Amino acid sequence: MNFTDRLIAKVKEKKSHVCVGLDPRLDRIPDKIREEAIKKYGETKEAVVDAFLTFNQGIIDAVKDDVAIIKPQMAFYEKYGYQGIKAFEKTVAYAKKQGLLVITDAKRNDIGSTAKAYADSYLGSSSKSDSLTVTPYLGSDGIKPFITHCQANDKGVFILVKTSNPSAGELQDLELKDGDRVYEKLARLVEDWGMDSIGDKGYSSVGAVIGATYPQEARKLRKIMKHNYFLVPGYGAQGGGAKDVVPCFNQDGLGAVVNSSRGIIFAYQQEDCSNDYQQAAKKAVLDMKEDINTALQEVNKLTWE
Amino acid sequence: MNFTDRLIAKVKEKKSHVCVGLDPRLDRIPDKIREEAIKKYGETKEAVVDAFLTFNQGIIDAVKDDVAIIKPQMAFYEKYGYQGIKAFEKTVAYAKKQGLLVITDAKRNDIGSTAKAYADSYLGSSSKSDSLTVTPYLGSDGIKPFITHCQANDKGVFILVKTSNPSAGELQDLELKDGDRVYEKLARLVEDWGMDSIGDKGYSSVGAVIGATYPQEARKLRKIMKHNYFLVPGYGAQGGGAKDVVPCFNQDGLGAVVNSSRGIIFAYQQEDCSNDYQQAAKKAVLDMKEDINTALQEVNKLTWE
Repeated sequence: MNFTDRLIAKVKEKKSHVCVGLDPRLDRIPDKIREEAIKKYGETKEAVVDAFLTFNQGIIDAVKDDVAIIKPQMAFYEKYGYQGIKAFEKTVAYAKKQGLLVITDAKRNDIGSTAKAYADSYLGSSSKSDSLTVTPYLGSDGIKPFITHCQANDKGVFILVKTSNPSAGELQDLELKDGDRVYEKLARLVEDWGMDSIGDKGYSSVGAVIGATYPQEARKLRKIMKHNYFLVPGYGAQGGGAKDVVPCFNQDGLGAVVNSSRGIIFAYQQEDCSNDYQQAAKKAVLDMKEDINTALQEVNKLTWE
Repeated sequence: MNFTDRLIAKVKEKKSHVCVGLDPRLDRIPDKIREEAIKKYGETKEAVVDAFLTFNQGIIDAVKDDVAIIKPQMAFYEKYGYQGIKAFEKTVAYAKKQGLLVITDAKRNDIGSTAKAYADSYLGSSSKSDSLTVTPYLGSDGIKPFITHCQANDKGVFILVKTSNPSAGELQDLELKDGDRVYEKLARLVEDWGMDSIGDKGYSSVGAVIGATYPQEARKLRKIMKHNYFLVPGYGAQGGGAKDVVPCFNQDGLGAVVNSSRGIIFAYQQEDCSNDYQQAAKKAVLDMKEDINTALQEVNKLTWE
């Protein structure tokens, strides 16, 4: 089944557009987990990785009833070399076993047989990850090898179009001779690249990353990329609210998953939150889910039928 | 010592602007190496990785007198999960032990603390890699964390500006309202980003990737980015010749390292080449070195003093 059809089924099952980012950082993991890992492995990379896995499994257990998809950020695993990659692989396997979908946030990009090698890693038939974020600077040579894998293996990609960070506009907003911005021109390419892989629900396996911090641009992009699912970072810690993500959705009440990482997995460190990291994460997810669903009710008619 | 000063010292020692890309592919590695690995580990990922390492060490031994720097392409290692990363790490360690510099070609990109995590991996004080390729679509938020590490740890980055592939222009060549192309605008940013890390020889730790397949654009870019070292892919297998890479150099006969991957490491599979992969690689490197040095002699006065 097409990746977006699988995603939509899961979104409806969980009644949730929330994606949880699994970005573990050693200094923010609960002391108890860290100390137990050090007891087992000493102060080594193995201990870090053991702590990451225990932490991630705890988060997955806590949020799995209320999210469709999780998004591990590769950088935080890669930082610990091959041991880190092992923790990433085990995290993905655990999430899949718990019935969640997975976006690997690796922003990979290359061309030809090199892009194919990345696609083999993350979107191959034996890869557990369901989808991958991809950076478009190399043009279609750098995108098509990923799309080929999406079609063959029912996987998805999310191409960076308009990112959530303050300097996003330095290249993305440059104004072209014909009046378009760079991100708009790219959006038209993304729409095209996805036309051969549209699923039963009308969405392509080729998605786009659109920051919650730029709602006006999101509104324009939603019109250009009618058939592309959006992955929306920037909610919560980066400043985007539920009203800001509404323009990322279509009239069918679908079309976007909204990510929060720190705001959920480290919620236990915030004031007025439970000290239990699992309870705090669960509450943060429930609040976010409700926040987005309420904002959407005001503008469209998704009934979770 | 600044990364470019270290690079230039090595280029002069070897009298060579050649960079060898270490992109191992299982189906192109000599049968003997593959069979011995399978004998040790069976038909497993461990065998693949063992074969990669043996092959890479053989290439490094064969070319080390005539190249300053090597460039492993992460995708080919990542394809084999954590075992692949182990082979990558051991390859880099071996290259360093043999006195070579290393560019990790991973085209990483992200923002803030995530970019910092990537920088920790590849440009940290304990990282063996000397430099990293980086993709600029996120703007300066996605570049500065890498530059901070370059300055603290004498490492380098090469930012994709004008890549060697056929579809490079889809985004990179878009014409802006003010008459610049996107790649020219980016080149001006790259020049700026490098101004705080210029070494004794006048080159910044912030380099640029400029394809050998676009010599006219390279000529323009050399003028905009006077202080940036170029990493030039696209020589050989992708169609660029020695004359095409000349515009990437400055009048001092420096300013670029030219990469070839398949054309060197799999030279033994070409007609008229030695069947011994090490001998074939050595000859291919010597030919390429001579080819570039001869082309450069015609236009500038580098005397390898």
